[in-house]
Amino acid sequence: MSDAGTTIHELRQLIRQFVDQRDWRQFHAPKNLSMALAIEAAELMEHFQWIDVETSRRLPENPDRLAAAVEELADVLSYGLALANELDIDVSDAIQAKMIKNAAKYPVDEYRGRYGPQDDGPLSE
Amino acid sequence: MSDAGTTIHELRQLIRQFVDQRDWRQFHAPKNLSMALAIEAAELMEHFQWIDVETSRRLPENPDRLAAAVEELADVLSYGLALANELDIDVSDAIQAKMIKNAAKYPVDEYRGRYGPQDDGPLSE
Amino acid sequence: MSDAGTTIHELRQLIRQFVDQRDWRQFHAPKNLSMALAIEAAELMEHFQWIDVETSRRLPENPDRLAAAVEELADVLSYGLALANELDIDVSDAIQAKMIKNAAKYPVDEYRGRYGPQDDGPLSE
Amino acid sequence: MSDAGTTIHELRQLIRQFVDQRDWRQFHAPKNLSMALAIEAAELMEHFQWIDVETSRRLPENPDRLAAAVEELADVLSYGLALANELDIDVSDAIQAKMIKNAAKYPVDEYRGRYGPQDDGPLSE
Repeated sequence: MSDAGTTIHELRQLIRQFVDQRDWRQFHAPKNLSMALAIEAAELMEHFQWIDVETSRRLPENPDRLAAAVEELADVLSYGLALANELDIDVSDAIQAKMIKNAAKYPVDEYRGRYGPQDDGPLSE
Repeated sequence: MSDAGTTIHELRQLIRQFVDQRDWRQFHAPKNLSMALAIEAAELMEHFQWIDVETSRRLPENPDRLAAAVEELADVLSYGLALANELDIDVSDAIQAKMIKNAAKYPVDEYRGRYGPQDDGPLSE
Repeated sequence: MSDAGTTIHELRQLIRQFVDQRDWRQFHAPKNLSMALAIEAAELMEHFQWIDVETSRRLPENPDRLAAAVEELADVLSYGLALANELDIDVSDAIQAKMIKNAAKYPVDEYRGRYGPQDDGPLSE
Repeated sequence: MSDAGTTIHELRQLIRQFVDQRDWRQFHAPKNLSMALAIEAAELMEHFQWIDVETSRRLPENPDRLAAAVEELADVLSYGLALANELDIDVSDAIQAKMIKNAAKYPVDEYRGRYGPQDDGPLSE
């Protein structure tokens, strides 16, 4: 599989099959899955907890650490797709719709190089 | 766009373009993105915080609430893809590899209808 | 030590001493501590991830599981106090001030038995 | 109230009274409170999401931002105490016991200036 040749639907099917084979939909209530997502996101954060922002950009230089972090990211995304399966919503639609909303909220001219309004800028401003 | 006809690569490009247009890669260090992921996961949890597990399954009955939760899920997944972009890793590969590992860790026969070993079962056991 | 005879200041001193002895204030920037707090909160959630809301009330019936969860709660609170130390703020003041604000936001008459406004009620309403 | 003159028990009573007056113990199952804790921890993280580690140390220079972050920290700690109330455990005992355990796990000589074993050090090592 590769991102260029794999549809969201195919990844969702992979997750669905895994869950169905174990009869785990009984555990996959949205409330529980939202907790699972947050837990996996925290496990991903652990890899960056005590290091500097710039140092975190160099994670790919260390293949073992990269592999460990990527596993956590895979967990986050898998639970996200599992939740999409339970809610029966289209992920591509949802992301596209949200990006259109985000584009209106953060116009390019106003937010180029800035992540928030003036008063939300770095403390050093 | 729909999940059946959209590749992971296409979604990643959508995110990449949004970030590049705003010159936001300077903020998208892995450390910051892991925080963003966890923050969006928490915003998703808010929708389920005080309700019962079974009640959470009925979210789709309320279109407004479903739409609000789906926006948060879109945010979680978008930041996940943004992190994959920064780390330059293949999401489909990563998820497939992790599912193979999970399948070995949770054999179907042993875990059907059970989310953990006997001593990790519900307290009521 | 017991909650009836221990001041917040005494607990904060316990944390401060531990951190100083290891020269760990260099890691205890507010950004890092906020991540640590969220990570420990997630480890606490793990104990409740797949069980029902009502089942979670019975955790104290299982001493081993209670002890494990309480350790995570201790971690959450310790990092919270470590952050108060770094920011040099008074925790008792902050909690009292927030409870006064909360009391105004959630008047007793309006919120007795309800955690949110009518339209934030359980989906079953 | 001030940290030097306030016991943990007194803060716990403040929270307990607030919850009892609103008949909110019905919502305060450990599972729900663990989610609330994680959600408030995420709201605290939002204040540090996009800024550098060192910049985050200067939060107290900006009184408005400090006040906003401190409110989130008060929420985290309040939910932590609410959970202690529900589980009926002693927080001072739990923190002291955990710090003794931590002291054995992280001996001063070995961990002075280091947050983890050699192979957990900064990526730059």
